[in-house]
Amino acid sequence: MKREEALEIVKKQLTEHRYQHTLGVMETAVTLARKYGADEKRAELAAIFHDYAKFRDKTEMKSIIIEQKMDKELLEYNGELWHAPVGAFLTEKEAGITDSEVLDAIRYHTSGRPNMTILEKIIYLADYIEPGRHFPGVEEVREMANHDLNQALIQAVKNTIVFLLKKNQRIFPLTFLTYNDLVKKED
Amino acid sequence: MKREEALEIVKKQLTEHRYQHTLGVMETAVTLARKYGADEKRAELAAIFHDYAKFRDKTEMKSIIIEQKMDKELLEYNGELWHAPVGAFLTEKEAGITDSEVLDAIRYHTSGRPNMTILEKIIYLADYIEPGRHFPGVEEVREMANHDLNQALIQAVKNTIVFLLKKNQRIFPLTFLTYNDLVKKED
Repeated sequence: MKREEALEIVKKQLTEHRYQHTLGVMETAVTLARKYGADEKRAELAAIFHDYAKFRDKTEMKSIIIEQKMDKELLEYNGELWHAPVGAFLTEKEAGITDSEVLDAIRYHTSGRPNMTILEKIIYLADYIEPGRHFPGVEEVREMANHDLNQALIQAVKNTIVFLLKKNQRIFPLTFLTYNDLVKKED
Repeated sequence: MKREEALEIVKKQLTEHRYQHTLGVMETAVTLARKYGADEKRAELAAIFHDYAKFRDKTEMKSIIIEQKMDKELLEYNGELWHAPVGAFLTEKEAGITDSEVLDAIRYHTSGRPNMTILEKIIYLADYIEPGRHFPGVEEVREMANHDLNQALIQAVKNTIVFLLKKNQRIFPLTFLTYNDLVKKED
C-alpha cells in the first residue's frame, strides 16, 4: 500500500492532533529504520497504522479482544493498552494489511514484548520520541536513539514503568517482561 | 519456641552486623504487629528467622531450590532472592518451626506475593524500615508505617522496583505482581 493511500485511510480514524502525532511517528520510524537497517517501507506502514484503533469505542474494543481470543488479562488493565492489539486486528481486517511483521509492530507498540524484532523496537520508540512528544526524559531517549536502539528502548520502557509507579497504576505484565528481557540481553 | 532459644539458633548463622539487623527487624515487627492486630509471637519468630539462610552457600541454596521443587525461575534471577524461600525451608527442617504462617512470612519477605497476609506484610516492611536501615526514602516509609501498613508497603515495593530499574537489574515477576496486587486493592 502506498503512503498516501495509507495516510488517507488512517486520517479518517484520528483527531487532527493524533494524525499529526502519526506523521511524527512515521518520519521518526523511517529515520530509525534507515539507521538500524530495518525495512523502511514496513516501518512507514506500521507507523501510519500504529494508532488506527485509538478512538474506537471501548465496548467495541472489548468485544474484539474477547471474540478474537486475545489475552484476556488486557481487560483487567488500563484501556489505553487495548488499541494496540485491536489496532493490529482492524488494520488487517479493514485496511487489508496482511504483513505479519507490520501487524506485530502495531500489536506490541504499547506493551512491548520479550524478543522484540527491530521493527517492533523502532515503532515503540518512534511513538515515544517523535518530535511532537514533550515530557520529562524524552530528550534523553531521543539522544540515545541516535546511537543505540536498545539503550534508548530500555530507557523508554523504564520511564514508562516509573511513570506508572508514580501514579500508583498497575503495570501490564508484558511491559515488565519486556524490561526484564531487554536488560538480560545487556548483561 | 522462646525468643532466647530462637535468637541463639539464629545467631550462629549470621554475621554480627546481620544479627543486629535481625534484632532491629524483631523489635519493629513486634511493634507493627501490636499496632495492626497481628499475632505478636508469630511476628517475633518470623522476624528472628527471616534471614536464617542469608549466608548459606549459593550452591547449597541452588540444590535446595531444585530438590524441593521451588519456583525454578528463582535461579534465573538475583541470588539475593534465594535466601527467603530457602530460609523458610531450613527454618522448618533445622529449627523445627512448623507454623505455616510464620514460614510463609519468611518465604515471601524479599519478593512479597499477591494476597499477602498481615504477618507477611509486617515482616517485609520491618525488614525494610528497621532502625539500622539507612538509605534514601526509608524515613518516608517509616513515617507511613506509623499510620497505614498498606501505603507503607506499596511505597517500599515501589522503591525497591525503582532501585532495580536504576541499576538495570531484572525484577523478579513476583515483585511486580505484588505491586500490581497492592495498588489494585487501593483503587
